[in-house]
Amino acid sequence: MILIPKEKHVYSFGPNMKPVARAKPGDIVVFETIDALGGQIKDESDTIEKIDFSRVNPATGPLYVENAKRGKVLAVEILDIEIAGRGIVVTAPKAGVLGDKVEKPRTRICEIKDGTVHFGNLKIPVKPMIGVIGVAYDEEIPTGTPGRHGGNMDTNLITKGTILYLPVFKEGGLLAIGDLHAVMGDGEVCVSACEVSGRVKVKVDVLDGVLEWPLLETADAYYLLVSMEKLDDAIREGVELGVEALAKANGLEWDDAYMLASLVMDVEISQLVDPAKTIRVRIPKEYVSLEAFFKG
Amino acid sequence: MILIPKEKHVYSFGPNMKPVARAKPGDIVVFETIDALGGQIKDESDTIEKIDFSRVNPATGPLYVENAKRGKVLAVEILDIEIAGRGIVVTAPKAGVLGDKVEKPRTRICEIKDGTVHFGNLKIPVKPMIGVIGVAYDEEIPTGTPGRHGGNMDTNLITKGTILYLPVFKEGGLLAIGDLHAVMGDGEVCVSACEVSGRVKVKVDVLDGVLEWPLLETADAYYLLVSMEKLDDAIREGVELGVEALAKANGLEWDDAYMLASLVMDVEISQLVDPAKTIRVRIPKEYVSLEAFFKG
Repeated sequence: MILIPKEKHVYSFGPNMKPVARAKPGDIVVFETIDALGGQIKDESDTIEKIDFSRVNPATGPLYVENAKRGKVLAVEILDIEIAGRGIVVTAPKAGVLGDKVEKPRTRICEIKDGTVHFGNLKIPVKPMIGVIGVAYDEEIPTGTPGRHGGNMDTNLITKGTILYLPVFKEGGLLAIGDLHAVMGDGEVCVSACEVSGRVKVKVDVLDGVLEWPLLETADAYYLLVSMEKLDDAIREGVELGVEALAKANGLEWDDAYMLASLVMDVEISQLVDPAKTIRVRIPKEYVSLEAFFKG
Repeated sequence: MILIPKEKHVYSFGPNMKPVARAKPGDIVVFETIDALGGQIKDESDTIEKIDFSRVNPATGPLYVENAKRGKVLAVEILDIEIAGRGIVVTAPKAGVLGDKVEKPRTRICEIKDGTVHFGNLKIPVKPMIGVIGVAYDEEIPTGTPGRHGGNMDTNLITKGTILYLPVFKEGGLLAIGDLHAVMGDGEVCVSACEVSGRVKVKVDVLDGVLEWPLLETADAYYLLVSMEKLDDAIREGVELGVEALAKANGLEWDDAYMLASLVMDVEISQLVDPAKTIRVRIPKEYVSLEAFFKG
């Protein structure tokens, strides 16, 4: 088993990433991660306006995966997510969907024990997930931004038992992972989830195929994950690709696939608060195959 | 039991609706409904460009409910939805999320039997739901448009076993129901679901309280249903009301409720293709009560 310690991390996914570990397809790799605030929040008087933003959203890695190259797909199966016993929730003026209503920055430190996040008197069941997961890209993209390469997609379905398929742009793929959440609602409306450090165990593989955007597989469905500055643009792109996959998988004309999509495809929200917003387009496995999402 | 036949229907929710039946709180009422195309589509050569649009989206009713008046809430528990054996899916140029890609109008007639919609070779399990359900409003709003009064919300959670709470604006509430769907994906991307005629059995009740938007109760959560022309505006409004309900239910300051919302509240999409778009804000029952959504 390969372990990548948290000290090995990056703050952007770009064209010149230098691998810190190597794996072969089929290998199991553990990524030890720092929380999204870079471990800088020690108590509730530490607000996000006081921290060094150059240390925000560290992603552990990158991992070089043999045989991964442009035009292939990197499959990352999430085998396990372990989270720390302490989580952080932050907000601040201008942050999140209602940022104009926030008067001053706020931090809450939440104890996490017995499978729950303690938020005041409330005990919220943990649902550990990965906020940032991505690969090297042609342009330099901060780890806080999602895109075609993955990155800060903040989708709470990237969790134990699911498989994320990422397009490969650079030799070795160069996978990095960070920004674990103990729990997060769809939308992540206040700008943060319950941010935690932890460890992620994954199995990596390389497939033949070309993807335009990250694709997630759960037990019963596939989800296209599309991130764009404008929500309406992301929705349009996701719906367009979903309809194409339905047409291909079922041998349908485009119009018929468009109508079928209206019956069986769900448009969902991952997050509304990062530099690009992320939507999910869900298609149940009965109506589509993995290969139907691959181009060419 | 009160039955309202399909011949009694309206095409708008407005200030001057005339009741066609009366019920007391606690009564059970059956609404017989015409499909959203007004029963005008007979075969696949009938496209929506050929039909009379003044007969689209008929809603059966309105029902006068005693004690319902401005400042109260009408509770509509969906006891059962029976659907016909034949469903219609339509699309056309400019219709839906990808309307600019549709070259010509298309209609599909789908047989519905053994609990499935037959779409070509595919058998899609039925999930019957109500597209249009609303009450009299201060302005005249076509039944095809959703709003504070309900209307064409196209939320597939308005189904057997859920309770819809609607604000009351006019004496008697004046409830009307139509536009049943055999199945619909979140987003209703091509502009139609599998449109069917049928019968809806509901139990009506009147509660003390003031709602700003329709609210839906399922077994495990409450959903605010907000409809606006712009998706971002609907999301903002829904999140704002959700945060207020969380603050009220848990005795939290606004900032804390905003942070809690980011952990436990989901922003979801109902439909993207009506004259106003509809979003759902989901809050699990562990964190909120029905009364927390009532104003004043």
